[in-house]
Amino acid sequence: MKINVVQNVLDANDRIAMDNRALFDKNRTYVVNLMSSPGAGKTTLVEKTIDALKDKYAISVIEGDIQDTCDADRIAVLGIPVVQINTGGACHIDGNMVRETLPSFDLDKIDLLIVENVGNLVCPAEFKIGENIKAMILSTPEGADKPAKYPLIFQESAAMIINKTDLIPYVDFDMERAKRDALVSNKDLAIFEVSCKTSSGLSDWFRWLEDKIEAYKKQNP
Amino acid sequence: MKINVVQNVLDANDRIAMDNRALFDKNRTYVVNLMSSPGAGKTTLVEKTIDALKDKYAISVIEGDIQDTCDADRIAVLGIPVVQINTGGACHIDGNMVRETLPSFDLDKIDLLIVENVGNLVCPAEFKIGENIKAMILSTPEGADKPAKYPLIFQESAAMIINKTDLIPYVDFDMERAKRDALVSNKDLAIFEVSCKTSSGLSDWFRWLEDKIEAYKKQNP
Repeated sequence: MKINVVQNVLDANDRIAMDNRALFDKNRTYVVNLMSSPGAGKTTLVEKTIDALKDKYAISVIEGDIQDTCDADRIAVLGIPVVQINTGGACHIDGNMVRETLPSFDLDKIDLLIVENVGNLVCPAEFKIGENIKAMILSTPEGADKPAKYPLIFQESAAMIINKTDLIPYVDFDMERAKRDALVSNKDLAIFEVSCKTSSGLSDWFRWLEDKIEAYKKQNP
Repeated sequence: MKINVVQNVLDANDRIAMDNRALFDKNRTYVVNLMSSPGAGKTTLVEKTIDALKDKYAISVIEGDIQDTCDADRIAVLGIPVVQINTGGACHIDGNMVRETLPSFDLDKIDLLIVENVGNLVCPAEFKIGENIKAMILSTPEGADKPAKYPLIFQESAAMIINKTDLIPYVDFDMERAKRDALVSNKDLAIFEVSCKTSSGLSDWFRWLEDKIEAYKKQNP
């Protein structure tokens, strides 16, 4: 009997992610995989992005957490369809977890699906879920040494949102170093300096994301 | 031929961690496994702890990072023996990585070995390395919802150091919620409210750690 060996878990995940992607393309759903350290501001950025783009696009959200539904609760009150993934200990979302949520969505009515990953600057970057782009948040209190120390997530992301710029007077954050080191990992990285608290800089992020969605829709008429 | 199957990677790791522990006990070396999200202040807490305790104890440090040696460089300038582990992508330190560093140390001359783990609030908590205690840092900009969302690291730690209390006026941090939820995971958790920047609250941490080391030495005469 021939035994098929799955070469590694990442290969298997890539195949599931490709299936997800095919399904999203069929329904013209643009998917953002949003990643960061715990507490960098993912859920707040999702809330602000919903607020800015909900009149133009039908938006849905997948919340990834080890346990708890407190982030999903924050999205649900905005009247946005949201599904919570509880990973039960796992440190990232993978393609299969996303696939399991899809029957809960009416995909052909969704323009933009935002997947908020588990708070973790390492593992989520290794797993495709069928997204169009990965985007990541670096918050100023984390420090400017993070791009040099955690290069993969910067390399894999299309955008880096530098959040909590309102805290710059109170933390040691070398903006030029953070940007320079991130661009070493990924010279095409789009960079936004924002404060989700004051909304400073967010309009550039909204416009950039809108351009991405429009370009995608043109490619998939 | 009988094939021995290692039941899972955590079992194998536990055995290596026990071997490490036996070697530490033989040399009366107290080992702290220090964990947190990226940028919560692990290296700064290590620097401050060295400064406070170096006249009483011989201290050494293992720095764990995916790549880079910038944290180890910060410790080396203090004249403290330090070994850098570069995990090359892995999101945590395990027992075997620590074992590989041990020939670099003169263990019988080390009273306190601090292992600074990779910045990650999830995976490091799953792996024993032969430590006496795990300790973790929660920084106030990360938010008070972290104990509810990432319970394992609070459950596994003997101490939670709430750092960056100097930023409390500028961030939304519910101290009572953070402490209450952390104690739900671990009713015996020792909690310290500190600012590594201003040194506020650190003396309680130093005293607690000193008591732990002294108690260990009494048990291993």
